[in-house]
Amino acid sequence: MNLVLVDASELDSRGLARLTDARARHLLNVLHVAPGHAVRMGVIDGPLGTGTVAAVGDNAVTLACVFAGAPPERPRVDLLLALPRPKVLRRLWAHLAALGVGRVILTNAGKVERDYFDSHLVHDAGFRPLLLEGLQQARDTRMPIVSVHKRLTVLVEDELDGLCPDGPRLVAHPDAGTSIAAALAGITPGDRVLVAVGPEGGWNDFELALLERHRFQRVGMGARTLATTTACIALLTLAHAALSAPSASEDR
Amino acid sequence: MNLVLVDASELDSRGLARLTDARARHLLNVLHVAPGHAVRMGVIDGPLGTGTVAAVGDNAVTLACVFAGAPPERPRVDLLLALPRPKVLRRLWAHLAALGVGRVILTNAGKVERDYFDSHLVHDAGFRPLLLEGLQQARDTRMPIVSVHKRLTVLVEDELDGLCPDGPRLVAHPDAGTSIAAALAGITPGDRVLVAVGPEGGWNDFELALLERHRFQRVGMGARTLATTTACIALLTLAHAALSAPSASEDR
Repeated sequence: MNLVLVDASELDSRGLARLTDARARHLLNVLHVAPGHAVRMGVIDGPLGTGTVAAVGDNAVTLACVFAGAPPERPRVDLLLALPRPKVLRRLWAHLAALGVGRVILTNAGKVERDYFDSHLVHDAGFRPLLLEGLQQARDTRMPIVSVHKRLTVLVEDELDGLCPDGPRLVAHPDAGTSIAAALAGITPGDRVLVAVGPEGGWNDFELALLERHRFQRVGMGARTLATTTACIALLTLAHAALSAPSASEDR
Repeated sequence: MNLVLVDASELDSRGLARLTDARARHLLNVLHVAPGHAVRMGVIDGPLGTGTVAAVGDNAVTLACVFAGAPPERPRVDLLLALPRPKVLRRLWAHLAALGVGRVILTNAGKVERDYFDSHLVHDAGFRPLLLEGLQQARDTRMPIVSVHKRLTVLVEDELDGLCPDGPRLVAHPDAGTSIAAALAGITPGDRVLVAVGPEGGWNDFELALLERHRFQRVGMGARTLATTTACIALLTLAHAALSAPSASEDR
């Protein structure tokens, strides 16, 4: 934990936060804090700052918090992901938040098992602690916005333009020769990027055609077929690298 | 499993392989193969090919195999990794093999707990099945070469030039402004790349100075601090992308 995140509602009017959960245990048992120690803090979807330990007790830590400045910029990459099986999804959430993703759009697809939607990991109470873990690892405060969609056609045809109105849309596909860097080389500064990752076994032809009719461009990551977790991490990494490359920020 | 890998010793003189382990169960229970079906196959560290199902039985599948051509090129990226805790290492092996890594050099460091070396996951019997899983996912036959080193100084000063004689060496560091793409832009075609990932909490000053005295250049991946698994996947992804970028292959 490289940052202690609190919800704005946890701060009292004097800026004091009293933590009694896993964060307190981490501060006490791993970081061994004592009164006077300062730790990096952030407000969820708010600014970064510092907390000075005011008091420690039985599994409780009280911090005097000072926050300043604007919240960090929301990560400019969004992810459209065919819902993976719960075992994979559980481990994926923290990776996604750590790498930085503005929005996670989970969807059904032909090769997604229907019962994956029964997992508690598609509900806020299930994924929020795992996203927080990733944000605290990466020192970010911006909680990804998550939505779950049981019909891909409805999502792509009726809802996606509202969720992700502008910017390039990329779909990872083994056969594509265009790299992510090439697809994003001419991006307008400030534009967001939406990347789509299919189910294990891939999108079917209907799904791929549907995505392409709605502005998705196929991009490849070489000849190797990657599992969902590896593919998501690789794709987000390459999209962020392309957005921060000199050609993407200086061309226009 | 996108490829069935066999060891050369599993093939008889007629090219028949009789599988009775997890590979057979996957062929029978997931792919539902029957006699006459063809599956992609490969020989570990050898060529790719095709297996035609000759017979199926109780948890056993016999394949008539035909292999052709040269083995795939060994991945050009090597990884020097401060030994992570066993829980992390167990999940990491398959990611590494799937992304493609020629050599994995595990090392001690100041912030590595000594008992991590007691894990069965640093021994061939522990990691080999996990590496195979990654290779079968990515359709590669090239088994990464793994070595384990309990003294970083001895490794870097006396052994590393033998393991990785040529090519750029990069060490991921949060403060570095140079991107991996920039560091590898002028690489000589065919050269290998060695990337180093430190322990959770980072290399200490002594270790960083030691690495820099032995040709390691600091590279950054942005302001976000990543956990070991995420960092390794991101770094290997960016190194491979840089090696396949037009500037790396056409400049010279």
